[in-house]
Amino acid sequence: MKLASMKQGRDGRLVVVSSDLAWCADAAHIAPTLQAALDDWDRLAPLLENLSTDLDHGVIPRERFHEHDAAAPLPRAYQWADGSAYVNHVALVRQARGADMPDTFWHDPLMYQGGSDGFLGPRDPIPLADEAWGCDLEAEIVVVTGDVPPGASRDEALAAIRLVGLTNDVSLRNLIPGELAKGFGFFQSKPASAFSPVFVTPDTLGDWWRDGKLHRVLMVDLNGQPFGRAQAGEDMTFDFGTLVAHAAKTRALGAGTIIGSGTVSNRDADGGPGKPIAAGGVGYSCLAEVRTVETITGGTATTPFLKQGDTVRIWAEDDRHHPIFGVIEQVVGG
Amino acid sequence: MKLASMKQGRDGRLVVVSSDLAWCADAAHIAPTLQAALDDWDRLAPLLENLSTDLDHGVIPRERFHEHDAAAPLPRAYQWADGSAYVNHVALVRQARGADMPDTFWHDPLMYQGGSDGFLGPRDPIPLADEAWGCDLEAEIVVVTGDVPPGASRDEALAAIRLVGLTNDVSLRNLIPGELAKGFGFFQSKPASAFSPVFVTPDTLGDWWRDGKLHRVLMVDLNGQPFGRAQAGEDMTFDFGTLVAHAAKTRALGAGTIIGSGTVSNRDADGGPGKPIAAGGVGYSCLAEVRTVETITGGTATTPFLKQGDTVRIWAEDDRHHPIFGVIEQVVGG
Repeated sequence: MKLASMKQGRDGRLVVVSSDLAWCADAAHIAPTLQAALDDWDRLAPLLENLSTDLDHGVIPRERFHEHDAAAPLPRAYQWADGSAYVNHVALVRQARGADMPDTFWHDPLMYQGGSDGFLGPRDPIPLADEAWGCDLEAEIVVVTGDVPPGASRDEALAAIRLVGLTNDVSLRNLIPGELAKGFGFFQSKPASAFSPVFVTPDTLGDWWRDGKLHRVLMVDLNGQPFGRAQAGEDMTFDFGTLVAHAAKTRALGAGTIIGSGTVSNRDADGGPGKPIAAGGVGYSCLAEVRTVETITGGTATTPFLKQGDTVRIWAEDDRHHPIFGVIEQVVGG
Repeated sequence: MKLASMKQGRDGRLVVVSSDLAWCADAAHIAPTLQAALDDWDRLAPLLENLSTDLDHGVIPRERFHEHDAAAPLPRAYQWADGSAYVNHVALVRQARGADMPDTFWHDPLMYQGGSDGFLGPRDPIPLADEAWGCDLEAEIVVVTGDVPPGASRDEALAAIRLVGLTNDVSLRNLIPGELAKGFGFFQSKPASAFSPVFVTPDTLGDWWRDGKLHRVLMVDLNGQPFGRAQAGEDMTFDFGTLVAHAAKTRALGAGTIIGSGTVSNRDADGGPGKPIAAGGVGYSCLAEVRTVETITGGTATTPFLKQGDTVRIWAEDDRHHPIFGVIEQVVGG
C-alpha cells in the first residue's frame, strides 16, 4: 500500500496511490489525514488496504496522482528524530577535520531531535534566505512508527514500523559548528525537511525491506547530473529496529513518529572514502561528504554548497526503473 | 482566558476554565482540541473569549474543573523547544564542573529541540524505569505561539505568543554527559515533560506579563517542603520574544509551538549562587542547581536526584495565593 497527502489545509487530504503512482483514490471516508490513520492503524489499515486493492484493480473512482500536488505525507508530525546510521559518513567527516571518532560510535547510535512542525512537499522549493549559511541536501531513508512503548526491544520496534519513505533533510552546514559548540545539538542549522510524495508499507516493499533496512539504491541528482547512487542496504551500521529502539529507550514514541537513517553513505570498494560517480564510484548523498573527501584527498573542499536555483532530485527505483516512493525534486529558493 | 484539555483520546477535549479554576465549560462546539483552536486562532479566540466571559458570569452550563482529570493543555504538540534563558543557571552548572562559559552565552540563546509526541498531564506520575538515570525536575515557564514567519523580529515573535503556562521538564541527568559528548544534543535524557493544568492568554495575566517575561514567583515544593521560590521575571537574560525569534531565525514555526524558558534561576542578593530557602534564599527550580551549589561551596553534591515515591509540586500564585495556572503535582514512579 502506498499513501500520500494531497495539499489541503495544514494536514493534507489522505489518498491511497496505485502501485505505479499513476492514480490515487480519496481515503477521507476512512481517515481524513495520514495522522488520523496512524492514530487508529490496526482498525483503519485493513480498510485502506482494501481501497488500495480496489484502486489497483480499477474498480473504484480514481484521479490522476500528480506529485506536484502532494504535500509531505505527514505535512507536520509530532516527532521527527534523525539517526546517523551510516557511520562511514560520520567517520569521514571527523577524519576531514582531524577529529578522532570514539569507538562507541560503532555501537551506540547518534540521533538528534528534529523540528516536525512543518515539512516541505516533494516539489516545494527549499527556502534559503542566505547562501552563506551553507545549504546542503541530505538524502535519507525514513520510517514512520505506530505507538512504541518505552524500553521496546529491536524486534518490537521493527514490528511498530508502519511506513517507509525518503527525505531530503536540508541542513545549513555553516551554522552547525557554532550550534554544536554550544552543546545543545542542532536547531537553526536544521530548517524544514522535504519528504517523498508517497510512503509505502513494509510488506509492499517485499524483499527490498529486510533486516530493518531498505535494500535499494538511493538515487541523487544535482542540477541534472548523477551525484549519488549509494546502496541504502549496505554500510548501514544501525538498522531501523535499532534506531527506533534507541529513540524509545527512556520514553514512549507516539504514533506518527518519523525516524531517519541519516545521510546514506557507502565505502568505496577498496574500503576508502567513496568516489564520485564520474570516477566510477557510487557518489554521495550530501555535499558535506564530497567536500570531506575533497579535503582528505586534496587538502581543500572545492564543491560549493547549494546556491539559489540549484536543483536536487532524490528517488529510489524498482527493477523497471520506476520510482517506488515518487520523486523529491526541489529548486533552491524557488 | 484560561484553557485546558480534559483527558480524552490522544488530544484531549478543549474546555475554557473560570478565572478561579473552579469551573469549566466545554468548548467543543468552537474547537474540539486546543491545537484546532490554535490552528484557526484569529477566528476562534474571540468565540472562546465570549465563552470564558459567560462562564465567569455563570450564565452557561458549567462543570467543576478537576485538575486531576486534565491532560497537558496540548497532550501532544508539533513542536517543543526549550531555551536556557536564565543564564545564571548555566553559569553555575559550568562553574561546578570547572568549565569556562563562553561570553557568547550572554548574547546568543541556548535552545534544544525537545520531544513533543506525548506529554504528561499535571497530576500524572513521572515514569522512571531506573533511578540510576538521575531523574530531575526542571520548573520552567512556557509560551505557546501561533504561526511565526521565518526571520521574525522580537516584536513579531512577542505578538505571536498566544498562551503562557508552566512545565516540569523532566530530565535524566546521568544520561546527559554521554549524550552531550556525542554532540547531537539531548534525546534519551529528556523523557516526557508535564504541563500546568491550564494555559492562560497574556492579556489575562495583565501586568504579570510584560517585556516578554512572567513576573511571578515560581513555586516549587519537593516532598512537601518549600524548595524553590525564584522570581521568574528576574535574571531572565533572554525574554520570550528573543527566544521565539531565535527559534524562527531560519524557519517558520507552526501554530502550537511550545517554547520553554529553561530552568528558572535567581542569583542570590549578594550576586553569588542562590541559597536554600531554609537559609533565607529563594531556593532552586531543579535538583541539578542545588547539587551544583553544594559542589561549589562544599566540594560534593549531597542532595540526591528523585527517587521512587518522591513528590514534586510546581505552581505560581496570584496576590491572594491562588494558583494562576493550576498546580503540577507529580509522584515519581506513581
